[in-house]
Amino acid sequence: MKLTQAIILSAAILAGHACLAQEVKEDFKPSILNQPGQEYPQVNSQGYVRFHIKAPTADSVRVSLGLGGRGGTLLTKGDDGFFTGTTEGPMDEGFHYYHLTIDGGVFNDPGTLNFYGSTRWESGVEIPAHDKEFYALKDVPHGNVQQILFPSKSTGSQRRAFVYTPPGYEKDKSKKYPVLYLQHGWGEDETAWSNQGHANLIMDNLIAEGKIKPFIIVMTYGMTNQLKWGHLKEFKIDTFQTVLTDELIPYVDSHFNTIADQSHRAMAGLSMGGMETHAITLNRPDVFSYYALLSGGIYTPEELQGKAKPKLIFISCGSKENPDKINQAADTLKQAGYNVVSYVSENTAHEFLTWRRSLYQLAPLLFR
Amino acid sequence: MKLTQAIILSAAILAGHACLAQEVKEDFKPSILNQPGQEYPQVNSQGYVRFHIKAPTADSVRVSLGLGGRGGTLLTKGDDGFFTGTTEGPMDEGFHYYHLTIDGGVFNDPGTLNFYGSTRWESGVEIPAHDKEFYALKDVPHGNVQQILFPSKSTGSQRRAFVYTPPGYEKDKSKKYPVLYLQHGWGEDETAWSNQGHANLIMDNLIAEGKIKPFIIVMTYGMTNQLKWGHLKEFKIDTFQTVLTDELIPYVDSHFNTIADQSHRAMAGLSMGGMETHAITLNRPDVFSYYALLSGGIYTPEELQGKAKPKLIFISCGSKENPDKINQAADTLKQAGYNVVSYVSENTAHEFLTWRRSLYQLAPLLFR
Repeated sequence: MKLTQAIILSAAILAGHACLAQEVKEDFKPSILNQPGQEYPQVNSQGYVRFHIKAPTADSVRVSLGLGGRGGTLLTKGDDGFFTGTTEGPMDEGFHYYHLTIDGGVFNDPGTLNFYGSTRWESGVEIPAHDKEFYALKDVPHGNVQQILFPSKSTGSQRRAFVYTPPGYEKDKSKKYPVLYLQHGWGEDETAWSNQGHANLIMDNLIAEGKIKPFIIVMTYGMTNQLKWGHLKEFKIDTFQTVLTDELIPYVDSHFNTIADQSHRAMAGLSMGGMETHAITLNRPDVFSYYALLSGGIYTPEELQGKAKPKLIFISCGSKENPDKINQAADTLKQAGYNVVSYVSENTAHEFLTWRRSLYQLAPLLFR
Repeated sequence: MKLTQAIILSAAILAGHACLAQEVKEDFKPSILNQPGQEYPQVNSQGYVRFHIKAPTADSVRVSLGLGGRGGTLLTKGDDGFFTGTTEGPMDEGFHYYHLTIDGGVFNDPGTLNFYGSTRWESGVEIPAHDKEFYALKDVPHGNVQQILFPSKSTGSQRRAFVYTPPGYEKDKSKKYPVLYLQHGWGEDETAWSNQGHANLIMDNLIAEGKIKPFIIVMTYGMTNQLKWGHLKEFKIDTFQTVLTDELIPYVDSHFNTIADQSHRAMAGLSMGGMETHAITLNRPDVFSYYALLSGGIYTPEELQGKAKPKLIFISCGSKENPDKINQAADTLKQAGYNVVSYVSENTAHEFLTWRRSLYQLAPLLFR
C-alpha cells in the first residue's frame, strides 16, 4: 500500500468514526414504502434506518443497506425472536433498494413493498427528502398510468409499456400531446419510473403549478437483450432500438393523441437507459429532438457533428457521482453551439432521488 | 369421536395415501410466475410443485403450500446449501398464494413474483390449467389497464383504482361503454383482478373471439375499513359504499366514455367482494342492474322483494366449495321470477381459477 492510499483510508475510517459519534435521535417512524400495517423498517429524522425482522431460530440476519464498503448492517438477535439493527450512519435522502441475507440465503424484508432492481424484486425504503413535496401525492388533478400491451414482430412477443397521460387527456379528445420516451436503468424494468421514480406525481404536480405544458410519457423495458452486470460493454442497442422506433412509437402514435413528429418527441434515460438514449438518438436523429442522459454519460460535439441538431441536450448526475464530467461536457457542447442544460443533484449519488430531481428539472425544458 | 366421523377420517387418510402412491413425473418446468431468469419453483404435468431455496446455514425451511391440513411442505437440506422439496400431491389447477417459513420467520420465495393476498405481498405459483387458453396472453388486440387516482372527500384521501378499457377504446372517441365494477377478496387489493385474475386478458380474448360486446371494468380497494381475518361480521359497508357510489362512479363517468346509467352498470365481487356486492346492490338498487357473487354468497327472494329488479343475478363457486348452496339458491330465485345464472367451476376451490372462469362465464351475459 502506498503512503497516500494509507492516508486516504485513515481519513475515511476517521470520517466513519465521526459519523458514529453522532447521537441517533429516537424519532423513528415507519417508512412510507412499508406494506399496509407494517411498523418496520423505520426511518428517523436524520436518515438512519432501523430494521426489525422476525426469525426466531435463525443464526444470522444481515441487511444489504448501510454505509458504503461496510457490507451492510448486521442485525442483533433479541430474546423476542426478532433481529434488530440500525444503519451505522444516515442514508442519502430518497429511495434505496435492499435485501436481507438470512443464514446465507437472500430474501426480502416482509415489511416493505417490492421494487424491481438488480434483475429481482427487492425491498425498498424511503428517506423523506427535504424537497419531497415535488413528488408527493397531492389533492390535485391526476393523470393516469396505463399498462399497454403492444405486438412486437422483431422479438415475437407481446410487450408491455406504461403510458402516463396528463390530467384532462380524456376530456378534450381533439388535443394532441408531445411524447417523452423515458428509460429505466440496468436491472430495472418498465415499472421503475412510476414505482420508484413517481414520474406521474412529478408531472401531476408540475402541471398543477402551471410550470409545464402537459405531455405524455412512455416507459418500456429496455434490457431487451439479457445481460449480466459487468457486461454492459457487450450490450448491442439494435434489438431494443428496433422495438422502440419501429414497433412501440408507431403503436403509441396510432393509439394515443400524440403529435407524431420528431420535433415533439423526446428521449431520456437513467444510467443504462442513458446509454440507450445516447446510442439511439445518435443512430436515429430523425426520431427525437430532445435528448436527456440522467447519470447516463455525456454527448461530445464530435458524435453529434453532421447530424440533425437536437433542440435540447440535458445531462445530469448526483453530486456524489462525477459532476465535473457533466459540467465540463456541458461547457464543451455549449461552445460548439448546442443548447445544453446540465444539472447536479445535491447530496445524492447514483440513486432515484437524483433521477426524480432530474426529471423535475428536465420536464419544463421540453417541447418549448 | 363418533364412529361416522372416524370412518370419514380414515377414508380421508386412505385417499391421502392413495395420492402419495402416485408416481411423480420428472417433467418439472419453471412456473410462469417466476421472476425473470429464475428456475424455481417448478411445476410438473400432474400439478406437483417443487421448491428450491438457498439458505446454507438455516435449520428449517417450510413452504405454506401443500395438501390441506398437512401444514404445507417441509423442505430437506442438501449439501449444496439449498433446501428442496415437492408438494405431497398435485395442487389444483390455477393460481396459488404461498410463503416460506425460514427458521420461524415468514418470507417470500425469491424465485417468484409477488401478489397481494392475506394483507401482504405473497409468493405465487401457477399450475397450468387444461383450459388456460381463455386467460392467455395472445397476439390479439389488447385493451389497457390504467391506474387512476381519484379524490375521496369521505376518507380524506387520494384513492387508487385500475380501469380496463377495451381495445379500440382510444380510436372511436364518440363510442360509450357500459361498466362493470369488480371487487377483490379479503386481504387482496385493487391489483388482484389484473395480476392474479388476468381480467384484462380474459376480456381481450373474449372480445377477439366476438363473444362479448366490449365494456369497461373498474377495480378499486374494498377493504376501506381495516379489519382482521375472522372479524368479517364486524365489517360495515357504509364507508366503502360511499367511496364507490358517491366518489368513484362519478369520477369514472366524468373521465371515461361510459353510458352513465343504472342499466349499463354491473357490480361483481369475489369472496368478501361478493359480500360487498350483495350489500351495496341491495342498499342501492338504483345504481346497478347486473349483480354477480363469485364464491361470495347468494341472494334470497326476500332480500330482493320490493326493490328494482336486477336484469341478471349471477352466482358461482368452485366444485370444492358449496355448489349445492349455489344451485339451490339459483332454483329458488328462478321460481320467484328472477333472471339467474349459476355456475360451478369444476375441480377448483376458493381460489383464483374459480374466479377467472366465473368472469369468463359472466362477461357474455352482461349488458345484453
